[in-house]
Amino acid sequence: MLLSELSGVGRDPAGGVTRFAWAAAELELRSWFSARAAGLGLDVETDGNGNLWAWWGQSASGASLPGTAFVVGSHLDSVRSGGEWDGPLGLVSAFAAVSSLRDSGWTPTRPLAIVAFAEEEGGRFGLACLGSRLLTGAVEPAHALGLVDDSGVTLAAAMTAAGHDPSGVGADPARLAKIGAFVELHIEQGRMPLPESSTTGGARGLAGAGRPIGVAREIWPHGRWRIDLAGVPDHAGTTALADRVDPVLAMAEGIVEVRRAASELGILATVGRVRVLPGAVNAIASSASLWVDARGQDSDRVRELVALVERRLGVAAALESWTDVTRFDAALTADVAAAIGGEVPSLPSGAGHDAGVLSLAGIPTAMLFVRNPTGVSHSPEERAEEADAVAGVAALTAVVRRMAS
Amino acid sequence: MLLSELSGVGRDPAGGVTRFAWAAAELELRSWFSARAAGLGLDVETDGNGNLWAWWGQSASGASLPGTAFVVGSHLDSVRSGGEWDGPLGLVSAFAAVSSLRDSGWTPTRPLAIVAFAEEEGGRFGLACLGSRLLTGAVEPAHALGLVDDSGVTLAAAMTAAGHDPSGVGADPARLAKIGAFVELHIEQGRMPLPESSTTGGARGLAGAGRPIGVAREIWPHGRWRIDLAGVPDHAGTTALADRVDPVLAMAEGIVEVRRAASELGILATVGRVRVLPGAVNAIASSASLWVDARGQDSDRVRELVALVERRLGVAAALESWTDVTRFDAALTADVAAAIGGEVPSLPSGAGHDAGVLSLAGIPTAMLFVRNPTGVSHSPEERAEEADAVAGVAALTAVVRRMAS
Repeated sequence: MLLSELSGVGRDPAGGVTRFAWAAAELELRSWFSARAAGLGLDVETDGNGNLWAWWGQSASGASLPGTAFVVGSHLDSVRSGGEWDGPLGLVSAFAAVSSLRDSGWTPTRPLAIVAFAEEEGGRFGLACLGSRLLTGAVEPAHALGLVDDSGVTLAAAMTAAGHDPSGVGADPARLAKIGAFVELHIEQGRMPLPESSTTGGARGLAGAGRPIGVAREIWPHGRWRIDLAGVPDHAGTTALADRVDPVLAMAEGIVEVRRAASELGILATVGRVRVLPGAVNAIASSASLWVDARGQDSDRVRELVALVERRLGVAAALESWTDVTRFDAALTADVAAAIGGEVPSLPSGAGHDAGVLSLAGIPTAMLFVRNPTGVSHSPEERAEEADAVAGVAALTAVVRRMAS
Repeated sequence: MLLSELSGVGRDPAGGVTRFAWAAAELELRSWFSARAAGLGLDVETDGNGNLWAWWGQSASGASLPGTAFVVGSHLDSVRSGGEWDGPLGLVSAFAAVSSLRDSGWTPTRPLAIVAFAEEEGGRFGLACLGSRLLTGAVEPAHALGLVDDSGVTLAAAMTAAGHDPSGVGADPARLAKIGAFVELHIEQGRMPLPESSTTGGARGLAGAGRPIGVAREIWPHGRWRIDLAGVPDHAGTTALADRVDPVLAMAEGIVEVRRAASELGILATVGRVRVLPGAVNAIASSASLWVDARGQDSDRVRELVALVERRLGVAAALESWTDVTRFDAALTADVAAAIGGEVPSLPSGAGHDAGVLSLAGIPTAMLFVRNPTGVSHSPEERAEEADAVAGVAALTAVVRRMAS
């Protein structure tokens, strides 16, 4: 099995994997990355932001191939109790592709790299695509270094404890300028709608299309909002219903409204985090908060959902993050599809990716998806058939051969 | 002002007081209790369960008055960010009553005690009336000693750190047998409905009745339930609404239903605590829980509320605690009202009290309430007018004079 050598790392008793950035399991995967790269004769380096690079045709000391680099990769970290495919599949597939090309006697004519971006999930420090965002300058170094995990450990302290000097964190335009193109292979997430115009129009996901491999068209617009509701704290056993200002009730109405509006507008919206203070069973709460994650093909509809919830609750939502639609490079995506051959379904992504961050920084990027029969993601149930994972390696091999020759 | 000598103890910047059992602020109040008692020539002792007693006419060494004791008292601890009246008012009033009686040359003909029960609020270890429940044997010592606070400190460790030997915790029938009657004076909580048959029928609370002092008739039946809702964890950005099993949505529907059913049944029900796991903004949760606190005059209606919520959510609620109606002693309450004189309104209590715990153990108990204009409780807004607090002292003085002569 393609992922079996990593399978036990960070494994939970309940079946998932927890591989937080700069913690033990992820450090074990970093060691694996370095050993795998060294075994293929690649030059390994860690950049200032903690992203791991394995180079063919470009080394600090030796001679380098001319031109900008073709880069493939993904990430090693996971969400808490996540699946083992999300991230590592792209790296295992990249090493397998380079290995088979090398064994066949092929050599690149431009620099080739495999990259593992740090803290892609935001599982530990709460900010997704942190390694790529720092690289492109989309996040301020001081802000990033001060982010804390659930135990109050800062990113700076976590890096230091793992032996990485945090003083090198920040935008790295010279490194960015070396990247001519980036392709990320990833397990499919969800069963996203296929375009009506394609021959598979109306189907959902690669399973619906009956195809093992697809390419990404765009990442949907995505916003996160926090809604704080104030109450009047009081005794649960003595306060008449008519005298109450109960923020938990308002929170509940907000959660119901988020789903109703998402359904009406045809977008995705989720409340996955709430906070109730003081949180005593026998006390009417003093405050309640809910977080809204909303995404969809149409950014106006995403914003309209939040406006509907605001009107229903009579309070303003605080925007915590907004990323407009990210379109992948059409020419590169066409090259990728041509390398694979045949009709390759084109899917939107509801999830963010490092490829999206690099795309926003002006680098031509594309993505490959490997069929996920159920679409389940960020869960131990996430999976791909072995045959589809092998098809993914073959596709990535063809892409690397075409793009780096 | 009656409470001014304690006012700064455990004061939050936001205006409330936080006085958790066996922590610094509550220990400061214990020292105040001992000093105040010693100043009145009372004999102070701490029982095995950490309840503080100040005796007149009964000492470990000297001669004791005959008969069972008449006991008055309340508690020193508070909820987090609570009001300063809940608990201390009963103790300050008791010391003031004993002081004025002594100054007038009065002496008791039976033993008289002032007691401060430990951890009445359950604010630190989650189990209300812990000191009185341990005394009466309503809680197993091993269970109580193993209870943990939010920092993981056990009751046993907290007692030890405060210099109290936890090995003495447990039922104390000899001490209980000495208590002939117990009267607790307390700030009014809520604006509870007055009986239709009284001359103030239809009014709510002492403010509605236009009276500074009332007596308690009963403590309403009170149950706590936990409802656990299972979901299918998945990615918030990639999972179609139709594919979701989102426990946060079910939780929200449950919260709305709790309020709807409470309103329909004419009882009180509150959700003040919830839990969502894993609690990530961008993840459909794997589980959500809500806690239901329900109380009312009629225990059947309280149970019916939970049945309605269970039917709506399609899951069973787990009962965490149940206390049926607790009726205070009619003869003692009549004596108390006679001592005060005039018409004394009789109110139900929606809140639990140490007086209720002693009543369940067979001890004649009664309660006095001091008017709270808004009824707000467990909140910095809780208050009584100074004139009403003084009326409470006068009433308690009359009660002690009548009952201990």
